[in-house]
Amino acid sequence: MPTQAEITAFLEAEFPQTKCTVDAVGDFGATVRHPVSLAELRPGGTVSGPVLMAVADVALYVAIMGEIGIVPLVVSTSLTVNFMRKPSSTAEIVAVCKLLKLGKNLAVGEVTLYSEGLVEPVAHAVGTYSIPPRKAGTDAGSEA
Amino acid sequence: MPTQAEITAFLEAEFPQTKCTVDAVGDFGATVRHPVSLAELRPGGTVSGPVLMAVADVALYVAIMGEIGIVPLVVSTSLTVNFMRKPSSTAEIVAVCKLLKLGKNLAVGEVTLYSEGLVEPVAHAVGTYSIPPRKAGTDAGSEA
Amino acid sequence: MPTQAEITAFLEAEFPQTKCTVDAVGDFGATVRHPVSLAELRPGGTVSGPVLMAVADVALYVAIMGEIGIVPLVVSTSLTVNFMRKPSSTAEIVAVCKLLKLGKNLAVGEVTLYSEGLVEPVAHAVGTYSIPPRKAGTDAGSEA
Amino acid sequence: MPTQAEITAFLEAEFPQTKCTVDAVGDFGATVRHPVSLAELRPGGTVSGPVLMAVADVALYVAIMGEIGIVPLVVSTSLTVNFMRKPSSTAEIVAVCKLLKLGKNLAVGEVTLYSEGLVEPVAHAVGTYSIPPRKAGTDAGSEA
Repeated sequence: MPTQAEITAFLEAEFPQTKCTVDAVGDFGATVRHPVSLAELRPGGTVSGPVLMAVADVALYVAIMGEIGIVPLVVSTSLTVNFMRKPSSTAEIVAVCKLLKLGKNLAVGEVTLYSEGLVEPVAHAVGTYSIPPRKAGTDAGSEA
Repeated sequence: MPTQAEITAFLEAEFPQTKCTVDAVGDFGATVRHPVSLAELRPGGTVSGPVLMAVADVALYVAIMGEIGIVPLVVSTSLTVNFMRKPSSTAEIVAVCKLLKLGKNLAVGEVTLYSEGLVEPVAHAVGTYSIPPRKAGTDAGSEA
Repeated sequence: MPTQAEITAFLEAEFPQTKCTVDAVGDFGATVRHPVSLAELRPGGTVSGPVLMAVADVALYVAIMGEIGIVPLVVSTSLTVNFMRKPSSTAEIVAVCKLLKLGKNLAVGEVTLYSEGLVEPVAHAVGTYSIPPRKAGTDAGSEA
Repeated sequence: MPTQAEITAFLEAEFPQTKCTVDAVGDFGATVRHPVSLAELRPGGTVSGPVLMAVADVALYVAIMGEIGIVPLVVSTSLTVNFMRKPSSTAEIVAVCKLLKLGKNLAVGEVTLYSEGLVEPVAHAVGTYSIPPRKAGTDAGSEA
């Protein structure tokens, strides 16, 4: 399975738009973080909802890659986000993902999002992902 | 109620990150569009999920402003997106929003997202928004 | 494709728990209704959330059967419901479903739920369904 | 705060339709269970989606009552369920709820649903609830 460094390199090459970095990956989960600066804020000094959704999406994607290997064609099929508290305008967003299902065709996971340093989460997401068919013996590995 | 031009000016001033423009607003709905260029694409040549979610969020926000006025502190409380078809990598995203509820404190709306020129939608979203208390007689107007 | 009477007979035989009846089916949609009596109410005199969810689920299921035939092994993969207004304790629930996608393996649809006689919806649902592989030439028909 | 026995008595009196019983409540969570017999099954010998949704709803409601007291007018505002594996047709459904937010007006929680005896969850739900205004000094207690 890919290391944290390999997944980071993949994100930088293939998703140059994202500012997310990977804190941890493996064991059916992942932790990613995203900086917060003016570009992420909206009126009221809060981190915009779409930024939180994008971070949740990356966290789910990284957690799946941690189990099945670097498979670019994994695609989101749904995402539900509940926004619960106003994020800090000065703390990084930290997203902790845990996979609930990793099947042959479909993965489901949940993500709890925090403003770093605060105990109570700012948002929670559940996402589903479609996994493309893979050839046996590729470096994508076998499935859980 | 604000005109399309006033809402566009508000988005440009307060959400300089967004590339969305407003095609239509009013009658408990809105249509917004978003250009698609390299920055919006992900591996496989498809528009990234977070871009679609961000466009849905703007469409809902614009539809609500079309009814209650320019109220910056309207905030998303939830968003559910189903991704249904691969968007075109060369067509703009067009999002058509319809409000399902506009109460004193809470608005609910749905958004159907298209790649311009295609009949079948690429994604569908449902969002809920919290509306802050407003003073009577302000330009935010009275509620539906 | 099955008629309304055939779908009703199927529901009665296979889902004897449901009290739903089918008003209309076809054209990528369905309308179903559910009586409201004491069994459907909860404290406050409102129709319980799970009853509304069950009606939405049947409406989606019927709409899919209207397109692909009576395929018992279609299964829900997700359902998101937003409860928007207090339903009447004395009116039937009417659910209007529209399919957004009907693919080979996955269907997505939305349902707007009303208390009969009221203009504004009481709830809105979006559901996804997994469609089992079908043999060519069966009465399940070919896919849209 | 109410005990497990008091909440059970409340459910029996006010929700006579439900077959759920309460295994545990408190510490911002709850565990409830639901028997599975013919009435809960659908074609294919699986527990019907609406039954799982109803159990998730009760688990969330019980967890909230465990924190704020027996407040009948707490109402669901949204529920998202992902169905992940086929439940056993012979095991009880066990739902483990954890509250993510308990504010003055809104609670958010997640529920993982199991077929008793199986390690991997059969479904996952996230729900939001509206909490009615309460008088200070009532037995509903003060808020978290």
